[in-house]
Amino acid sequence: MATPFAPLAPGSTIGILGGGQLGRMLSQAAGRLGFDVVILDPEDNSPAGRVSRGQIVAAYDDPTALNVFGRVCDVVTFEFENVPATSMERLAEAGALVAPGPVALAVTQDRVEEKTFLNGVGAATVAFAAIDSLDDLTAALDTLGTPSVLKTRREGYDGKGQVWIKSPRQAEAAFEAIEGRPAVLEARADFARELSIIAARGRDGAVAVYPLGENRHAGGVLRTTLAPAVVDARTERRARAIARAVMEGLEYVGVIGIELFDLGNGQLLVNEIAPRVHNTGHWTQDGCVCDQFEQHIRAVAGWPLGPTAAHARVEMQNLLGEEVEQWSKLAAKADARLHLYGKTEARPGRKMAHVNRVRPL
Amino acid sequence: MATPFAPLAPGSTIGILGGGQLGRMLSQAAGRLGFDVVILDPEDNSPAGRVSRGQIVAAYDDPTALNVFGRVCDVVTFEFENVPATSMERLAEAGALVAPGPVALAVTQDRVEEKTFLNGVGAATVAFAAIDSLDDLTAALDTLGTPSVLKTRREGYDGKGQVWIKSPRQAEAAFEAIEGRPAVLEARADFARELSIIAARGRDGAVAVYPLGENRHAGGVLRTTLAPAVVDARTERRARAIARAVMEGLEYVGVIGIELFDLGNGQLLVNEIAPRVHNTGHWTQDGCVCDQFEQHIRAVAGWPLGPTAAHARVEMQNLLGEEVEQWSKLAAKADARLHLYGKTEARPGRKMAHVNRVRPL
Repeated sequence: MATPFAPLAPGSTIGILGGGQLGRMLSQAAGRLGFDVVILDPEDNSPAGRVSRGQIVAAYDDPTALNVFGRVCDVVTFEFENVPATSMERLAEAGALVAPGPVALAVTQDRVEEKTFLNGVGAATVAFAAIDSLDDLTAALDTLGTPSVLKTRREGYDGKGQVWIKSPRQAEAAFEAIEGRPAVLEARADFARELSIIAARGRDGAVAVYPLGENRHAGGVLRTTLAPAVVDARTERRARAIARAVMEGLEYVGVIGIELFDLGNGQLLVNEIAPRVHNTGHWTQDGCVCDQFEQHIRAVAGWPLGPTAAHARVEMQNLLGEEVEQWSKLAAKADARLHLYGKTEARPGRKMAHVNRVRPL
Repeated sequence: MATPFAPLAPGSTIGILGGGQLGRMLSQAAGRLGFDVVILDPEDNSPAGRVSRGQIVAAYDDPTALNVFGRVCDVVTFEFENVPATSMERLAEAGALVAPGPVALAVTQDRVEEKTFLNGVGAATVAFAAIDSLDDLTAALDTLGTPSVLKTRREGYDGKGQVWIKSPRQAEAAFEAIEGRPAVLEARADFARELSIIAARGRDGAVAVYPLGENRHAGGVLRTTLAPAVVDARTERRARAIARAVMEGLEYVGVIGIELFDLGNGQLLVNEIAPRVHNTGHWTQDGCVCDQFEQHIRAVAGWPLGPTAAHARVEMQNLLGEEVEQWSKLAAKADARLHLYGKTEARPGRKMAHVNRVRPL
């Protein structure tokens, strides 16, 4: 259960594990509320470190670094879900409050655990099976049919660590492609569109949910989010109920991102959940008074949650790799709100910036 | 004249002279656009330094520090107008572009120069006289009458360095109160209300003007700004014309704050101009898509200026000294947008934070 907790006073220090763009935008939000921020990231001068009070340059599982980090920070949070469980333990030992907590991390780090949890709280997913051997895979392909997708249970994001299987004959090659790691086979969802919902839960158990976003991916990477998505009231209600059930089930504190398949027949399936601020929530920066980054800081600092209503319709577009060169053209457009991450090297496909195009509701 | 200038690419370094709340909010805006920021301020761990890539801890006239600062920064700007002219020269020698430029600083650092300049570009002020001796003061009191206000020509802000004279008999005491420094005597303006206008001029000479704000002061310190102020079209037009004339006359690059006396009879007098982002422009953070801080960064970086229309009505209130303790109550109000400056010591009267209360237009 969320424990009683006096709201953290401005001037306190918030620690963020991970120094990428999510950490950077979290740090900027924390700064506006008067907090100091310290980043832990192995890359020196990380995007987040450059806008924060300080950065500890160390591996995420470095015991000494975690000890120092846990001691200088009043609360520690993270920008990615693959935080080692031992790191969480070390931070707790050093006296730092960590949010979201270990339950949320353990569940979302493992695709089988996550789907099992989701079904348990009444949130439907595609049919799936845990795969530990080629025999498991062959049997599961019989049950789930093809096409289906084989994903490693742990790690993997933006389409990495997964392979589509189009016929049972591809089973062996697919299992080799993921190097025989523990995996999950997922039936294909025959969805009409991809939606997502960004929500938050405070230390007091209060829940706040943003309007839904509609997402387009390409090559496994998010390209655009349009929000608020045009959805009927029933879908909106269902999505909000899923968000609440998931957060309560995880005893969650912070912002969560939940990806949904809209089957077009009134049914929603949860694709995956991310226990952190989420790329599909970037639209809130220019569409809401209190964006997902401030909301997350409020939640982990024990502040009351902020308002989540949209005051504008936003089309968020990721700028990947060299697309960031468009900045000078976009800077001249009155409706284009640019958010650049301060990354020096524009490697192909790397998330460099995003632009929110703002329209009246 | 503004010289041609390729827009500064994200990843470039912007220097800010001064590490207080204005520097902090400028740095946060620069960070959102992907810039690195370095602060120069004698106070270690200044509010701005704590959210920036780095801080050089040195006096504003330290030649070595200015040399280093000028060399690491692509553009240097400042959060206060009392930058020594020699510091500006040293920065230019070190190869840094400085904006706003030396003309704007020289004019606004001296109340007599400033009023003379204003009258020269057609912007009316109160009647005034330069005071170098007690004889000057006695003569000026004859002409301007009492009550009138004696202000040092240089420095002084938030009501400091000035004394009201209610009768000619107080002349000697007043002159002593300002320690016989070069001064200006200003006739009292019989104004209905105080307005201000925040405007920007880009390197290409483009001008952008925000809606007017209406201000309330107490004890010489700004307490609230209500914006957009309710003004007739003629007053709005006049204020905009003043802003344009002032910025063009100063070959200005950046955001400027212009305080106005509204005489209530259709006439506007300029009270003073500040060559920087301005406390009466904080409302733009929650009332406009592009706030005064991003606007200033855009201007000094040679970017196109952003839009200045208001999408909400905002009441900005400064939180001084212990008033900052209201943060926990304000954090719970959905219409209250808190901006805290990360100052550790809440000295009486010190600007610690502000809150923007947002209402529909």
